[in-house]
Amino acid sequence: MTPLSRRSIVDPFHAIDIMSEALKLERSGRSIIHLAIGQPGAPTPQRARIVASETLHHGRIGYTEALGIPALRTRIAHHYQQQYGLEISPERVAVTTGSSAAFTLAFLALFDVDDCVAIPTPGYPAYRNILKTLGLNVVEIPTTHDTRWTVTPEQIAQAHAKKPIKGIVLASPNNPDGTMMEPDRLEAVANCCADHGIRLIMDEIYHGLVYDFPTISALKFSDDAIVINSFSKYYCMTGWRIGWMIMPEGMARTAECLAQNLALSVNELSQITALAAFDATEELETVKAGYAENRQYLLKRLPEIGLTSFHPPDGGFFIYTDISHLADDSMIFARDLLRKAGVSVAPGIDFDHCQGSKYIRLSFAGKKDDIEEGCQRIADFIAKRVK
Amino acid sequence: MTPLSRRSIVDPFHAIDIMSEALKLERSGRSIIHLAIGQPGAPTPQRARIVASETLHHGRIGYTEALGIPALRTRIAHHYQQQYGLEISPERVAVTTGSSAAFTLAFLALFDVDDCVAIPTPGYPAYRNILKTLGLNVVEIPTTHDTRWTVTPEQIAQAHAKKPIKGIVLASPNNPDGTMMEPDRLEAVANCCADHGIRLIMDEIYHGLVYDFPTISALKFSDDAIVINSFSKYYCMTGWRIGWMIMPEGMARTAECLAQNLALSVNELSQITALAAFDATEELETVKAGYAENRQYLLKRLPEIGLTSFHPPDGGFFIYTDISHLADDSMIFARDLLRKAGVSVAPGIDFDHCQGSKYIRLSFAGKKDDIEEGCQRIADFIAKRVK
Repeated sequence: MTPLSRRSIVDPFHAIDIMSEALKLERSGRSIIHLAIGQPGAPTPQRARIVASETLHHGRIGYTEALGIPALRTRIAHHYQQQYGLEISPERVAVTTGSSAAFTLAFLALFDVDDCVAIPTPGYPAYRNILKTLGLNVVEIPTTHDTRWTVTPEQIAQAHAKKPIKGIVLASPNNPDGTMMEPDRLEAVANCCADHGIRLIMDEIYHGLVYDFPTISALKFSDDAIVINSFSKYYCMTGWRIGWMIMPEGMARTAECLAQNLALSVNELSQITALAAFDATEELETVKAGYAENRQYLLKRLPEIGLTSFHPPDGGFFIYTDISHLADDSMIFARDLLRKAGVSVAPGIDFDHCQGSKYIRLSFAGKKDDIEEGCQRIADFIAKRVK
Repeated sequence: MTPLSRRSIVDPFHAIDIMSEALKLERSGRSIIHLAIGQPGAPTPQRARIVASETLHHGRIGYTEALGIPALRTRIAHHYQQQYGLEISPERVAVTTGSSAAFTLAFLALFDVDDCVAIPTPGYPAYRNILKTLGLNVVEIPTTHDTRWTVTPEQIAQAHAKKPIKGIVLASPNNPDGTMMEPDRLEAVANCCADHGIRLIMDEIYHGLVYDFPTISALKFSDDAIVINSFSKYYCMTGWRIGWMIMPEGMARTAECLAQNLALSVNELSQITALAAFDATEELETVKAGYAENRQYLLKRLPEIGLTSFHPPDGGFFIYTDISHLADDSMIFARDLLRKAGVSVAPGIDFDHCQGSKYIRLSFAGKKDDIEEGCQRIADFIAKRVK
């Protein structure tokens, strides 16, 4: 029989492998503290769950328009007015099965086989792996701890001069490190992309979870930018698999035809529930206050247990910290920590093939008690460990 | 700014365009009979909805293992034992976001850019469009009304001799026509694929909805075949977007890594609800009896209203009927029928670029009253119409 394809040789998402092993250990009776995955510890807002339950009583959960039910597209458009003072027409909104499906949709709509697309490292690993399996060439732009893990317009221009790039995927706050681009940096990057005809795809999934840093959408500086967001993080709806994309008007019909064929439609119950989540601000702000507290706790606690080299995150719910004084390989470190101490963390190699073996990513999206217990277990694990 | 990609130029799924327009008309107050889309009129089984509601009370709906929660993978594997007497290990099961995501996953895992993959015409349009946008070459194998719309091993061998094909996507029951391959034909096709190293991808989404025809899975004849199925049709769960794929053991880790990156995971609530749907056989068999009744009604009624040229479907819930004596273009006919008579049907050009303009597809998955009313409206529309 014909072998599998070459394009399917992509890295696993190691953090999910760790999570899967953690779930298995938990099901077998082990106590596990989950710090590997970017998943809110809080449930979906009660207000939204009540709407979901009511919808279930009516019975049929059916297909919808491929780009989402009109009420949700309109509400998302309104969100840009409320949060950013931007006028976005509902026709520019695509509702997608998580931000994941939005990336596939955007990449297919914009890039042909063999095109070059840039991503920063460290960065969210699915960017690289989705691009690769769709037949695109990935150009990595390395960033460092010393420059707050952010890309400069000069770096983009240099990469483009070396080999023309059709697009670039950036995130602010960035995953894994939580650092953000300052507004003037974001503007300069958007202008650089416009000058060179490079399509800017901006991942704004951690907007809403920002701690004392200005939150500006890339849409302020560019109508050609693609902005991707989700209900998974701020709205506590990971398992509902629902996100969205804002696109230029001229891309809407193309995205619709692709979505009709690739997905038919997005889960209707998730769409109705997401619409209700926009009205759960009080609950969600309480959850966010918990993250802020966890963040403060970790900024103080991590140095005490020997993890000193990290940037305080501007947004999101991760800390990306150097462990090179403790281990040479973050994947082995993460597996060891899980098996011996019952704490799951994400290995840095997910986010950066070169330097990532020196780092781990910790999530502080869980409950305070769990974070405290997790820190104690890590402290004990480190104390027992000889590199 | 850079233009959109060439790969994104795919046909719309016209039936969904028609459905979207139908929903819009309905929201504006028009009475619409929906016969365009393959969607059960019955709600999700009550038993499953009760489980979904209970799950919502517990609160968090989270990420799961990328290929699905173990309980559901195990239950799906068991389904093959129950229904077909086949031993399938749970590791060969991938839970996916509808059958749509399973097709993308299978195509990426199996085929590289520029590979040739065969599909029959008429056939489900997403096969062609997903293949195309993923950079694959589509080889169409035409079938006809006279040969019951089924592909022969000889046709496959001929196509392969002309230009080597890496895989073929077939469906039984086929969409749009509902005809099935006899067991010996299916075996011969599977053997032909094995002989030529062609990967057989079998769409069995309408299994469970078969009227007096033997239902055999392609897995009986090939361990290398990929079999795709869904909870949308028999289980009445379209809007939950949940399906599955059975793959050879050697493909499981590759599919897992791809799914981790492309999707993270499938909707957890949908997975839990789908698991419960396996226990709703009594409700679901009642729904199926309704389809059988609708089918009998249409077999008698359609000829009375001037639609005489179609095969009685062996399975599924569609009738694919010739309208060439009434119109030259099935898309114009479908739009006219919707706007003037308030009945939505799928134009044949979705399924067949060449001959499809002569056909429309009618769904009989709705309520009997609606089918009857739909027929009356079509009869009145035809009576008023001059070609």
